[in-house]
Amino acid sequence: MTRIGGAVLVSGSERKAVVLLSGGLDSTVTLAKAQSQGYRCYALTVDYGQRQIIEIESARRVATALQAEDHVVCTINMASFTVSALTRNIPVPKNRSFQEIGKDIPVTYVPARNAIFLSLATSWAESLGCSDVFIGVNSQDHSGYPDCRVEFIDAFEAMVRVGTKTGTTTGSFKIHAPLATLGKAAIVKLGVALGVDFALTHTCYDPLPGGVACGKCDACLLRLRGFADAGLTDPVRYQDL
Amino acid sequence: MTRIGGAVLVSGSERKAVVLLSGGLDSTVTLAKAQSQGYRCYALTVDYGQRQIIEIESARRVATALQAEDHVVCTINMASFTVSALTRNIPVPKNRSFQEIGKDIPVTYVPARNAIFLSLATSWAESLGCSDVFIGVNSQDHSGYPDCRVEFIDAFEAMVRVGTKTGTTTGSFKIHAPLATLGKAAIVKLGVALGVDFALTHTCYDPLPGGVACGKCDACLLRLRGFADAGLTDPVRYQDL
Repeated sequence: MTRIGGAVLVSGSERKAVVLLSGGLDSTVTLAKAQSQGYRCYALTVDYGQRQIIEIESARRVATALQAEDHVVCTINMASFTVSALTRNIPVPKNRSFQEIGKDIPVTYVPARNAIFLSLATSWAESLGCSDVFIGVNSQDHSGYPDCRVEFIDAFEAMVRVGTKTGTTTGSFKIHAPLATLGKAAIVKLGVALGVDFALTHTCYDPLPGGVACGKCDACLLRLRGFADAGLTDPVRYQDL
Repeated sequence: MTRIGGAVLVSGSERKAVVLLSGGLDSTVTLAKAQSQGYRCYALTVDYGQRQIIEIESARRVATALQAEDHVVCTINMASFTVSALTRNIPVPKNRSFQEIGKDIPVTYVPARNAIFLSLATSWAESLGCSDVFIGVNSQDHSGYPDCRVEFIDAFEAMVRVGTKTGTTTGSFKIHAPLATLGKAAIVKLGVALGVDFALTHTCYDPLPGGVACGKCDACLLRLRGFADAGLTDPVRYQDL
């Protein structure tokens, strides 16, 4: 086992996996976690016309730093038909309380996003001859986003097992969600243990020019609380902080 | 009810649906069928770098002729990570017997294609405020493609019901596969009954320049037999026929 670019790498493994990598904190920790489990990781980032397009640069930095086997940026013109505050000119909520954040599905919900992303990752995995896909969904998002829940991951996996060549011929296909039961502080601590450099990551939904995080959107508030609860300081730049 | 552009249309309906439209025979009949059931149809075509890119022009012609409410061509650079004879320089099988065609999953299988397409259609449906999606999978493809089977459609629908805002808040989301149990001849007859102009459609996996069908790939052979079994002549142009 060697440590390169901040991540624990297991050399010589033939186990491949596709890891969805947005460039945010959760997906970066997920990539490091998959590598620590011995997977040779192929990182997939989706450019779907998101407002926080800067996260794709973070994904590139992370994939390079963690020495992913390959990194593909998949581009889809989803903004032309998908309505969300992340793809349209709809204001991103700011300064909400944590009670509000968990209360309902916010306008930052992107319809069927994780189904699309996981389907693309499944397609790449089958093409690589592997049957493992990783996604960084976690308990912090559960109350808000239906496609971040364990029920969804389980249903997606069941669908892939009957709807793909790999699933129907081998009977197996695994969607790994290693952060599924963790809160943000636990994810931060796991990232520290895995040697993740959080300065590479981007989380804010509504960044300022240059990628400075707003510090007020739901994503920033949850991230900041995660670092605070973990007793650590977030290395990324925030407006007015 | 009026008949415009060859399709039976029900006017005044508020029921919307997204229909996956490849520009082929099956998806065109599916669109006409959805319209005949009273749905206002939004046609979604995916440009995924397929070899038979000419089918997208057919999809445009069909969407116009059948007066779809809207037609979106979604573009994805899938060819950069998905391995298939339809996306890579892999020969398309020709002149196979019908026994061979149904025997195993062919190299024209595109990993997770229908999961990707249905996820995109689901995303548009949610954005339109509707919960109905149509796809033209049918029994002729069952033996070859795992993602054309009823088991897959059912599993996909179950996944959408737990993984989307619409599914979790209303408890309903329907993936319609009206051709699921039909063979090609029955689909041709249904298309005739619905007034479909088959000359608008394109089915061949490996067309010649100008879109002339090869007449020898699995898709052409199944289509030609469908017309023959229905006692009709296919109006599209074939090489050497």
